[in-house]
Amino acid sequence: MQHIEHYQKPFLKYLEGFIVNKEPKNLYSPINYILQLGGKRLRPILTLMTADVFGGNVPKAMDAALSIEVFHNFSLVHDDIMDDAPLRRGEQTVHEKWNLNTGILSGDAMLIMAYQLFENYDPQTFQALAKLFSKTALEVCEGQQYDIDFETRDDVTIPEYLKMIEYKTAVLVGAAMKMGAIVANASIEDQNSIYEFGRLLGIAFQLQDDYLDAFGNPETFGKQVGGDIIENKKTYLYLKTIALGSDDDKVNLKTFMSNLELPNTNKVEKVKQLFTNSGAKEATQNAVKDYTSKAFEVLERLEIPEEKKQSLRLFGEQLMNRRV
Amino acid sequence: MQHIEHYQKPFLKYLEGFIVNKEPKNLYSPINYILQLGGKRLRPILTLMTADVFGGNVPKAMDAALSIEVFHNFSLVHDDIMDDAPLRRGEQTVHEKWNLNTGILSGDAMLIMAYQLFENYDPQTFQALAKLFSKTALEVCEGQQYDIDFETRDDVTIPEYLKMIEYKTAVLVGAAMKMGAIVANASIEDQNSIYEFGRLLGIAFQLQDDYLDAFGNPETFGKQVGGDIIENKKTYLYLKTIALGSDDDKVNLKTFMSNLELPNTNKVEKVKQLFTNSGAKEATQNAVKDYTSKAFEVLERLEIPEEKKQSLRLFGEQLMNRRV
Repeated sequence: MQHIEHYQKPFLKYLEGFIVNKEPKNLYSPINYILQLGGKRLRPILTLMTADVFGGNVPKAMDAALSIEVFHNFSLVHDDIMDDAPLRRGEQTVHEKWNLNTGILSGDAMLIMAYQLFENYDPQTFQALAKLFSKTALEVCEGQQYDIDFETRDDVTIPEYLKMIEYKTAVLVGAAMKMGAIVANASIEDQNSIYEFGRLLGIAFQLQDDYLDAFGNPETFGKQVGGDIIENKKTYLYLKTIALGSDDDKVNLKTFMSNLELPNTNKVEKVKQLFTNSGAKEATQNAVKDYTSKAFEVLERLEIPEEKKQSLRLFGEQLMNRRV
Repeated sequence: MQHIEHYQKPFLKYLEGFIVNKEPKNLYSPINYILQLGGKRLRPILTLMTADVFGGNVPKAMDAALSIEVFHNFSLVHDDIMDDAPLRRGEQTVHEKWNLNTGILSGDAMLIMAYQLFENYDPQTFQALAKLFSKTALEVCEGQQYDIDFETRDDVTIPEYLKMIEYKTAVLVGAAMKMGAIVANASIEDQNSIYEFGRLLGIAFQLQDDYLDAFGNPETFGKQVGGDIIENKKTYLYLKTIALGSDDDKVNLKTFMSNLELPNTNKVEKVKQLFTNSGAKEATQNAVKDYTSKAFEVLERLEIPEEKKQSLRLFGEQLMNRRV
């Protein structure tokens, strides 16, 4: 397998060709804006890499990869409205730079354009890609709804939380990889296995994100450490503390999280101590490891040369060793 | 051809079967709510009727018809947010009954579900339907954007206005009919002709809506007569008055439309007089007639028995003779 840059550069070039001046400007300018805001383009790269792993033609996978990226950006535009977020990658969000209606309508257009990107494939491939896309997109909506619902619920269970992050984040990673496999004409078994690999790695990645938000190195972690605690988010660490902690731990956690007087640095330190003492910190580390090794186990099933499995393993390890 | 009820009843039954209790409730309840608010279900009926006209299997067209209806309701949910509308068919709009985020997310889910409804067709039919759907859906978004843009523009031309109503309304009528033809395996020529018929009739219908809003019979017209005038909408009547009227007419029209002191009944009467005196009323009537006869001319090209053409003509006449 090649370096990420090997796929990233041609993808960015292809993306550039997609960005055209279409009318009405007020509909298409926000689309061009969000697509050019940057990001690692991890999802489309996974599509191209997977097509390559299964012996497929990488340029042929370009439209499927772009569809994944356009869909991902659609979800960012609509989620930013729902979260009332003013910034995205350090720049103004679409609804902030333009307005609410532009955010809604440009997002809608992007969702449709994501489907259109499958149109150059033959009918069988088109149907396979569009079916997977619809299933995944609907799950992402469901995941977002669960996330919204959880904000006002006090009894969220660990299985419910895992399902939420699976739907909101992990299924798109699985689908991005499976699309590469579909375009490369991999067997149905291999298509399903690579989906599982992506899905499990996606869950591991999201759990690690929860972990790093509290325990990451402030110098290498991209976001503000403790951000989830300050925002009172019910992360895996929080839910595990409720599940594993003593009665005192639980009471203290809820008191700290609801205390608006407590300065943020104090709050972050106290909550992190509870995460550690209750065993939630360790349990989270273990969950990350578990999902990662489950993902690697799935690779064994693939009917591809050992070197290709090794390269997927390497990619997974790089991904999971970031910023810790 | 059969009466509208002949297609409406089985469609309503099929729609009922589509409405299920899925989780998360906060995502799917609003979808069930808007789909059950009623309406004439004109668009899906056109799909079924067209399948029938081309000798196709009506039950086989049910999924395509439902997709059109689900898409139409998606656009209502998102448009109602953009228009800040509290009511839809006399009931609360989705964002009003729930909230903004629910309106956005449920709408997104409906757009995806509309695509899923093509999945039971064979790959070739699936691709033909989905391509037509995407093209049409994107045009509807563009039409909505033009409509928003026109609100703050002072120099909208007649061709621009016609393009806006074509995209916002008429292409979906054309697509609804073409989908019926696709499912019935009609020739490409017939598919394109029936699309043209629907598109032209859709424009005629929308122009007639502009006309009736000012000159319709208050007792039979569904909405408040003069509503467009009260809301200062730049309809075909307005734009034609600007195009045909004397300099005095134009000044008067703009004065009445921007005068917030003028009581509504006075305003409606005065503006209607300008519409009449300038020749805009007659020009609008002529435009309705022109588009209707152009639609009927297209029917001649269809390779179907004369009686089927006659029944499409009858349907078109019924549609255009409503509420005048």
